[in-house]
Amino acid sequence: MKLLRVGTAGAERPALLDQDGTTLRDLSGLVTDIDGALLADDAALDRIRAAAASGELPVLDGSSGEPPELDGSGLRIGPPLARIGKIVCIGLNYHDHAAETGAEIPAEPIIFFKAPDTVVGPDDTVLVPRGSVKTDWEVELAVVIGRTARYLDSAADGLAHVAGYAVSHDVSEREFQIERGGTWDKGKNCETFNPLGPWLVTADEVPDPQALALRLRVNGELKQDGTTAEQIFGVGEVVRYVSQFMTLYPGDVINTGTPAGVALGKPEPKPYLRAGDVVELEIEGLGRQRQEFKDA
Amino acid sequence: MKLLRVGTAGAERPALLDQDGTTLRDLSGLVTDIDGALLADDAALDRIRAAAASGELPVLDGSSGEPPELDGSGLRIGPPLARIGKIVCIGLNYHDHAAETGAEIPAEPIIFFKAPDTVVGPDDTVLVPRGSVKTDWEVELAVVIGRTARYLDSAADGLAHVAGYAVSHDVSEREFQIERGGTWDKGKNCETFNPLGPWLVTADEVPDPQALALRLRVNGELKQDGTTAEQIFGVGEVVRYVSQFMTLYPGDVINTGTPAGVALGKPEPKPYLRAGDVVELEIEGLGRQRQEFKDA
Repeated sequence: MKLLRVGTAGAERPALLDQDGTTLRDLSGLVTDIDGALLADDAALDRIRAAAASGELPVLDGSSGEPPELDGSGLRIGPPLARIGKIVCIGLNYHDHAAETGAEIPAEPIIFFKAPDTVVGPDDTVLVPRGSVKTDWEVELAVVIGRTARYLDSAADGLAHVAGYAVSHDVSEREFQIERGGTWDKGKNCETFNPLGPWLVTADEVPDPQALALRLRVNGELKQDGTTAEQIFGVGEVVRYVSQFMTLYPGDVINTGTPAGVALGKPEPKPYLRAGDVVELEIEGLGRQRQEFKDA
Repeated sequence: MKLLRVGTAGAERPALLDQDGTTLRDLSGLVTDIDGALLADDAALDRIRAAAASGELPVLDGSSGEPPELDGSGLRIGPPLARIGKIVCIGLNYHDHAAETGAEIPAEPIIFFKAPDTVVGPDDTVLVPRGSVKTDWEVELAVVIGRTARYLDSAADGLAHVAGYAVSHDVSEREFQIERGGTWDKGKNCETFNPLGPWLVTADEVPDPQALALRLRVNGELKQDGTTAEQIFGVGEVVRYVSQFMTLYPGDVINTGTPAGVALGKPEPKPYLRAGDVVELEIEGLGRQRQEFKDA
């Protein structure tokens, strides 16, 4: 299933994208929201699945008589997950990205954090922070946790705790991240720095998370063109590993790292983002994002 | 005012500690909980203040006919704040602590994160993580944000965005934090690693946050005996600084660093914490904590 949240920021309604790929169905008669509590509730997910199969779910905002289509409908898509508990991020987790930044291949996953309040919808405006000269892009596969994960024993068990996947944009300010005398968190938590969505694709529809193509364009030019096959630590291993250091709860998110092609890895002058730039991201089967950048 | 939350974990009720320092008053008739929304609502805070002054607030759990006292009443005190958005932590922020760890005085604040799900009550059990050999203590002054803070101009303005203060225990696993190839977050986010409370003391009752004594004992032995006068970056400056890199919202918390005396700063063999140890913390005017450590 492709679960999403549609409406103005802070007042989104839960919805489902039909198998046809364009019609949105209203889930607000079945569930209050899409959050960790829902993802941990197999019976509720089964009810959504059955309702979707029956074809009886109401079309969202059907007042026009036409099913709203995703393109040109004017509907805002919000982040596909409410009440995110924490966002754990994995650094330097692609062979090609580690190489382009001149970093060694990490012996074990590098962990940093983004605050849930950095999350915006997939097509919302992203703000270049005041004083920023090194705002960078990073397309990432986001993993959404569906079951409490604590001291897991195996990567297979790690995968079994995943509820679904989404496109995530780990926007990063490299000067704040690297040159301002702190840990990476300082350059990862500016407002609007984590567009998420458009939808949360349940894990049953992603048979192999290590075989997904990821792409990112800036002003139409292809910058990142990678695959999750390049991940140093795969999704299941990342979940297992993180669960040794902290407990993961339903509704937590893991951003699993970015492939090669970020501005930081380019020759000087590095093409960092500025107001007016447009960034488009996509992951195979998980949808697309498009953000205009503006000054904060 | 001293605001707190009393009851079993996840089902705490909002309460007020009377001026007598022992009687707890029930606030659940006035407010649903103590959280960022309440702290941003001056009118609601004024209603609590007026009700407290009137002496008409019901005594909490008064069924026995006696006002419950804090010592020996059997009441559990939870963390004094619900729905914490994020916990920003400042590293190496005391002159004496930077010196004991052999670190240089930071040129600007070091930022790392704790996830809100690490927060427990002030007297709850703290778990030594599996595989840990370097679990350490850190008494800290927690700052609770009351107004949205974004690109603030001055330390004075930073202080004006503070709703109140609390005792915070920034429990830390030094091997995870320093030797495991990541940023500090890896050793700061183990479950139960952030006891908070007992109460949130509103800013009007803390005239000078840079003149508070902090103490921490392990098994009765004094280990940390510091003062916030040793802070390299004071509370107002920390709020101003952090607001340049991320937006702070009502209900966010900043752990402002720890004074000298942690296990990491002691000669070998360093006295790291183990199951069975008891840690007691206090900050002048903000109350005391007491945790027993157990194995996870």
